[in-house]
Amino acid sequence: MGALHEGHLSLIRMAAAENHRVVVSVYVNPTQFGVHEDLDSYPKTWETDCGMLKDLDKELAEDGNNLGGIAAVFAPTTDTMYPSGRPDQAVNAKGSFVTITPVGEVLEGASRPTFFRGVATVCMKLFNIVMPEKVYFGQKDVQQTVVIKKMVKDFCMNTEVVVGDTQRAPDGLALSSRNVYLGTRRRKVATVLSKILRVAEMSYLREHRLRDELLGPAEQLTKLLLMEQHQLPPEERVNFEIDYISLADPETMQELDEVDETRGAIISGAVKMLPVEVPQPGEDLGLSDGPPVRLIDNIILKPVKL
Amino acid sequence: MGALHEGHLSLIRMAAAENHRVVVSVYVNPTQFGVHEDLDSYPKTWETDCGMLKDLDKELAEDGNNLGGIAAVFAPTTDTMYPSGRPDQAVNAKGSFVTITPVGEVLEGASRPTFFRGVATVCMKLFNIVMPEKVYFGQKDVQQTVVIKKMVKDFCMNTEVVVGDTQRAPDGLALSSRNVYLGTRRRKVATVLSKILRVAEMSYLREHRLRDELLGPAEQLTKLLLMEQHQLPPEERVNFEIDYISLADPETMQELDEVDETRGAIISGAVKMLPVEVPQPGEDLGLSDGPPVRLIDNIILKPVKL
Repeated sequence: MGALHEGHLSLIRMAAAENHRVVVSVYVNPTQFGVHEDLDSYPKTWETDCGMLKDLDKELAEDGNNLGGIAAVFAPTTDTMYPSGRPDQAVNAKGSFVTITPVGEVLEGASRPTFFRGVATVCMKLFNIVMPEKVYFGQKDVQQTVVIKKMVKDFCMNTEVVVGDTQRAPDGLALSSRNVYLGTRRRKVATVLSKILRVAEMSYLREHRLRDELLGPAEQLTKLLLMEQHQLPPEERVNFEIDYISLADPETMQELDEVDETRGAIISGAVKMLPVEVPQPGEDLGLSDGPPVRLIDNIILKPVKL
Repeated sequence: MGALHEGHLSLIRMAAAENHRVVVSVYVNPTQFGVHEDLDSYPKTWETDCGMLKDLDKELAEDGNNLGGIAAVFAPTTDTMYPSGRPDQAVNAKGSFVTITPVGEVLEGASRPTFFRGVATVCMKLFNIVMPEKVYFGQKDVQQTVVIKKMVKDFCMNTEVVVGDTQRAPDGLALSSRNVYLGTRRRKVATVLSKILRVAEMSYLREHRLRDELLGPAEQLTKLLLMEQHQLPPEERVNFEIDYISLADPETMQELDEVDETRGAIISGAVKMLPVEVPQPGEDLGLSDGPPVRLIDNIILKPVKL
């Protein structure tokens, strides 16, 4: 969807290492935004994106270990992607859609009921147009990778889904096009989600397998981090709400009471960073004066090899 | 879906005339049958089908005008077509589906709310597996051809949809795998639908364009044909119900008040042939003792060239 960052670039690097021709798609897909979501204000940075891709292509060419480079940027119009007209963004919109349930209904799909329908539909079209041998998605949107893998399997599509690691800032915040909305104050606190998830992961690495053993410590840390902010004065504090913390099966995304260590699991979560209460003079509030920002993150608990 | 008849064979002949390799798919797709529909009793005639295809392939080879013959019969199992397990047939079933609305919701879709979802879903998979340059569908299921054309367009699929004429018995009855359920008595009366549609067509050919001018005469004939049967004694008569007679746009299948002669229209209908009231000794009631049979038919009103 454009607004490229190191996360996207790392996927292109992976693709160029393994393939002769890489096609980069840049398209802000309207049907994956809900009626009240940030479609209109979603960052569009076409010129910067092209500059970054140009630089990256040069970098790829200079490294003799790559098989290929960026052969094309596919940046279609909405008329190309929705040749019968763009469906509206309502849940009951008419149109031609791919739906993948129940995996697309839970977690992100619960908060955003049209999201995975929009994602699956546009990816089906992109795959049919580009006909890629492999498609690359970032682990940051982990449920998306699960939905796309299921779509490719269930519709007998001739492509392979490759998932690249989440790219993070040095303090652990997962890179996201939406981070530009945070501003300085919220940016510092935005690491809460990755900290909360990491606590659950630590518990798994210490060989705990029960839901309460993994999510209990995460809930305790959540309370602590919330209290920490509440104790600050309004001019300094950041308000956030945890939307969910999930422990789910890696293929079905259904919640687990216990991790089957031959399958592993996915710990994921979403946090809503609320606008700052009392902005200070000259404070950097982020793009568009710092609207509410919903951030997601996840950690894959790998199966234990027996 | 197997139970091959001349309608299917005519499509294969068309395909062999224009293509080097023809793949015939034979698969009774469970997801396009409603919960209370005839999936279990749908005619399965694999041995006969193969015999017919063998004979046809020989015929095709003997005619020097054909480009190709039958290269393969693709008769997958349900495990192949539904690799994550077969979704149930309920309207709210979970699974991976393609939906094409509103065109798939009206007419046949109104009577059979899961039908076009099942058809579009299985055809998407068949197209992805076989990767055909052209796909051949019969005009008898005209709304299906409209749904498939829309799917191919909206999902940017790399194939061309070709529609072959409806094949008919000498008395005008459209060939259908379900005709075997009719038995002698109902078979004679089953031509009512094609007669009713033809009356509407005649009106169009006499340059009438308004809905009432086309469907009025069709309704009158319907009444007459119903009365004709009601006047017969129960041992001789056939009861039928007209489900709908439609005058619709050829691309959207939405009902028309007036035909735009630059676009043309589709007159279509469905009739339910009810079981005979008083079966006579030794009477041929049709396959499975003559259950209710729903028949469909249609006539395309071609655009007038200006």
